[in-house]
Amino acid sequence: MAAEIAQQPDALARLLRDGSASIAEVAQSVADRAPRFVLLAARGTSDHAALYLKYLIEIRLGLPVGLVSPSTLTVYGAQPRFDGTLWIALSQSGGSPDLIESTQRARQAGAWTVAITNAPDSALATAADAHIDVMSGPELAVAATKSYTSELLASWLLVESWIGGDAARARGIPDLARDVVRAGAGLAVAPRYRFVERLVTTGRGFAYPTAREAALKLMETSYLAAHAFSSADLMHGPLAMIDEDRPVIAIVPFGEGGAAMQPVLDRLAERGADVLVEGDISRAPAAAAHIPLPRTDEDLGPILQIIPMQQLAYAMAIARGYDPDAPRGLRKVTETR
Amino acid sequence: MAAEIAQQPDALARLLRDGSASIAEVAQSVADRAPRFVLLAARGTSDHAALYLKYLIEIRLGLPVGLVSPSTLTVYGAQPRFDGTLWIALSQSGGSPDLIESTQRARQAGAWTVAITNAPDSALATAADAHIDVMSGPELAVAATKSYTSELLASWLLVESWIGGDAARARGIPDLARDVVRAGAGLAVAPRYRFVERLVTTGRGFAYPTAREAALKLMETSYLAAHAFSSADLMHGPLAMIDEDRPVIAIVPFGEGGAAMQPVLDRLAERGADVLVEGDISRAPAAAAHIPLPRTDEDLGPILQIIPMQQLAYAMAIARGYDPDAPRGLRKVTETR
Repeated sequence: MAAEIAQQPDALARLLRDGSASIAEVAQSVADRAPRFVLLAARGTSDHAALYLKYLIEIRLGLPVGLVSPSTLTVYGAQPRFDGTLWIALSQSGGSPDLIESTQRARQAGAWTVAITNAPDSALATAADAHIDVMSGPELAVAATKSYTSELLASWLLVESWIGGDAARARGIPDLARDVVRAGAGLAVAPRYRFVERLVTTGRGFAYPTAREAALKLMETSYLAAHAFSSADLMHGPLAMIDEDRPVIAIVPFGEGGAAMQPVLDRLAERGADVLVEGDISRAPAAAAHIPLPRTDEDLGPILQIIPMQQLAYAMAIARGYDPDAPRGLRKVTETR
Repeated sequence: MAAEIAQQPDALARLLRDGSASIAEVAQSVADRAPRFVLLAARGTSDHAALYLKYLIEIRLGLPVGLVSPSTLTVYGAQPRFDGTLWIALSQSGGSPDLIESTQRARQAGAWTVAITNAPDSALATAADAHIDVMSGPELAVAATKSYTSELLASWLLVESWIGGDAARARGIPDLARDVVRAGAGLAVAPRYRFVERLVTTGRGFAYPTAREAALKLMETSYLAAHAFSSADLMHGPLAMIDEDRPVIAIVPFGEGGAAMQPVLDRLAERGADVLVEGDISRAPAAAAHIPLPRTDEDLGPILQIIPMQQLAYAMAIARGYDPDAPRGLRKVTETR
């Protein structure tokens, strides 16, 4: 897991250099079909990349987007009507039977289908009309890291090309990712969470997928109850469970998403919560801890935000005597139907 | 909260008797417009009713459905293209500014908009093209209960009328709800969770919204870390955190959703997890505890499934010395933007 965290800058550089052209071709095919709705299908870590892609498409293209519940197709046998619909399935391995089957069903029902995977020869890649290879190289650790950031960048490149952009804004991302990996801020902050059993992560807009993925990494490798909430949802109920024993990790982007988190950050401060701010510390200057991040365009920020969270999950697992490469009860390719 | 839990059978009977006709009119207006895509907007408890409605529309109508991220409209100012789209906003109070604003924006962008609320004079009700009143009566407890089951039934009636059904299948639900309230199985099982700090709820398909809402109720009133996972997602990572100290509450419907949960129930049994089965105990006969439910059509099951979970949340709060009617840090109408 440590090696794969460290490989992310190279994987991102490779995708930008070797993958942009073929992603642009897929984007052209998508644009030619002028879809009116987009459905995204994924599970686990890839589901958080799908959530990021949802925000990108909604905000930059104004198209309605839904995250699919594969069970409606695979368990209940719904008969969908998907003409005019773009279907995008995301999966590291391309091997989960419910994603393969639901993608086949969507294609039969009239959707144009794209698979984004790290496995160009996988059944999912071949089941879809088009395939995007995220090129992050073999991922062996059960807790996905580099395939996630590569899925994020591939998603960004797809949308950027779809709207006719040239991807110049992403050029600096691999080097910034290298800076974040080297800074090791997630490793440095791990000791303060050594004995934590319950933790809340939060973010809003583009940063919400980071909060979700950070919580999943902590659950997978350190078995603690890490709970992710959008900062808006946190105000609707779960705020009640924040107390002095339950720290909060807030992913606070520079930009609109960070501004929209101000009310929640203020409420948390009022309640005396222990808050770590990753990102824009100016929104909560009295926070208990801070992980700085380079300032980027907000839509590209998630590619960097997750790296210290991966480091934190790794370091916490080691400190607790767990093996982050072999979480108990998990397999790398999960077969759900 | 206890009073409002007990009022649910009457509220459901009232909605069936007095509300079905006007819901059928809204359904006719929806059907006339033949939407090609549906977007659902909600927060908190109503978001779980929206998730139920998503399954209903996907399975019974085959239409693609998305759960809205209101922030893309209210925070990032996306310019949506929503012609051919049906937009449904669900909210007990009809007062949350981000739902009102995003519904107005959706309407301007070409969506046909429906509000489902417990407040016919609310700003949300008047912002939408059509309104469905769930008629559950004033809800005073911060933890929503009766407005939730009424939102579920209203959602079911909307879809049933939309496809031309006559709602006969729902006729017995109020009496069955009365049986479930009186049985008090959620109260009876509460002592075994008296000292639990972390808990996982799970369900699949129609039962997944119940798992989500049960976890929210437990968080709101008893402040424990209650984590909901779809039974498919549970296999993709979070299974690692299930151990002998973390009990699982599995909502196991009679039908396809219950069958699809079999692999996860088997894995949990292998791992020696403490599992309470609500519903079809035949799927996990060695489970540590059981809450029986009347057998219903699977799509109507969620209206009954949540009642023992509400009772459990209430009883756990009382046992721990908390006031379930006034959870710390929460207000009844949450204003997020």
